[in-house]
Amino acid sequence: MAPTRELSVIKAHGTGNDFVVVIDPDDEVELAESDVQRLCDRHMGIGADGILRAVRVEDNPEAEWFMDYRNADGSLAEMCGNGIRVFVDQLIRHDLANIPSGGTIPILTRGGVRDVTVSAGGHYQVDLGRWELTSDDLHVTAAGLDVARPALGISLPNPHAVVVLAHDEDVDGLDLSAAPRVSPEPADGVNVEFVVPLEPLVDDGVGRIRMRVFERGVGETLSCGTGAAAAALAARHFVGASAPQNWQVHVPGGTLGVRMFPAEEGEHVGLSGPATEVFRTTVSL
Amino acid sequence: MAPTRELSVIKAHGTGNDFVVVIDPDDEVELAESDVQRLCDRHMGIGADGILRAVRVEDNPEAEWFMDYRNADGSLAEMCGNGIRVFVDQLIRHDLANIPSGGTIPILTRGGVRDVTVSAGGHYQVDLGRWELTSDDLHVTAAGLDVARPALGISLPNPHAVVVLAHDEDVDGLDLSAAPRVSPEPADGVNVEFVVPLEPLVDDGVGRIRMRVFERGVGETLSCGTGAAAAALAARHFVGASAPQNWQVHVPGGTLGVRMFPAEEGEHVGLSGPATEVFRTTVSL
Repeated sequence: MAPTRELSVIKAHGTGNDFVVVIDPDDEVELAESDVQRLCDRHMGIGADGILRAVRVEDNPEAEWFMDYRNADGSLAEMCGNGIRVFVDQLIRHDLANIPSGGTIPILTRGGVRDVTVSAGGHYQVDLGRWELTSDDLHVTAAGLDVARPALGISLPNPHAVVVLAHDEDVDGLDLSAAPRVSPEPADGVNVEFVVPLEPLVDDGVGRIRMRVFERGVGETLSCGTGAAAAALAARHFVGASAPQNWQVHVPGGTLGVRMFPAEEGEHVGLSGPATEVFRTTVSL
Repeated sequence: MAPTRELSVIKAHGTGNDFVVVIDPDDEVELAESDVQRLCDRHMGIGADGILRAVRVEDNPEAEWFMDYRNADGSLAEMCGNGIRVFVDQLIRHDLANIPSGGTIPILTRGGVRDVTVSAGGHYQVDLGRWELTSDDLHVTAAGLDVARPALGISLPNPHAVVVLAHDEDVDGLDLSAAPRVSPEPADGVNVEFVVPLEPLVDDGVGRIRMRVFERGVGETLSCGTGAAAAALAARHFVGASAPQNWQVHVPGGTLGVRMFPAEEGEHVGLSGPATEVFRTTVSL
């Protein structure tokens, strides 16, 4: 048996998507799959959707920090729109990055380098990169929906199917304890977003929607960053040419901002929102 | 808005039934329902099934400590066989009680005074009091069960229906994401235990069973103290006169001990098991 070691960790969340953060500039903390599972266990450990380990990068001109992101089951993960806000917030709280409001820091992830911009009020915006409309001919059925509803397929590049509903009650009445069914059925599964416009839909130039989300392989969650972006993109699609480029997406865990902006190599989408530290502690592993 | 206050807490569990413990000898920490909900929130707070606040009792000759136990939703609760072990373990860890191995400490709960005995290896036994066989003519159906199975009704005094199955696969195959149905249907709901004998059933004079449990109003849990006691009592009932008085009950969160012993005012049942501290921290409320 390996000797017990003490590990300093931070529990933090972004709109309810929660993480155990390990600050490890010198890449000294080895976390086996079983360590990640123990830390993320909600009854016997800290409890989280995943682990974010902050490691300083050597010899990479593009980024100083690597976000080693693992899912709660110990598997490696690429990027997380909610997690990267928490990651940058923790670098700042630990005096490992000094970014003025409006400034940007590049973060190396397994999905490539992502730029995170610090905005006022402790919010962070991450450029999720390019998106693509993959289908306007999907249909979704779910418990609590009377009939199959049309859905838009959007790639970010993870796959989303977005259903726009008319009334708050339609969204409240959904039973997402079982997975919605999408046809034609995507081979690798799909995240499904159910969206309803808020009243008024556009306020002060900003589009406003509410969303519930079923994440593939997980179930209903409090927040999904790329899901919020897909939801806003779908809403803009249905509104048409007059639609705003900035959206507010209300999820069960809080409120996210989505911004569509042009870039040289194709239209990008940005996701913004808060990052909240809950507590710091030391655990034995 | 009330000013933010800092609260020192401990996260601990008994066979996976987890608690936020607040050591408050002088009864100074007021916790509103919303405070309890925030502390127990698994994504944005510490995360737990409930809160255990340790308050010193004035002028009560029967007990020095009161276990102020609240459910995660903020409601008051009476007693918890897993929680009271964690409670006494924390008193000892904080040098608030000095109990030799084999010694007993009475704890005041909303369900009355309960005696907790400290045994070797950091285990604790609580006297759950009297039990009663309420019916030998219940039937239970559940997803994954081919037909309705006979069940025993046992009161501790919370209600239990115990189904004994023959094979490990019968228990593994159960889908407890939905509530099992019990007939005749109890007015106030019932906890349902599914039990399978281990091989050998009796080892060194100790009966051995495995259990999964569906707690009324909660769902499937990692452990249920009174459920483990009911399961062992049902197993003893079916074995008959030769059955042991001491049982080991394997639950998803660990292993519990159940001991049946005579008392002047009727047969009692004792529950024993571990208590595990996970971490200590300070949170803002």
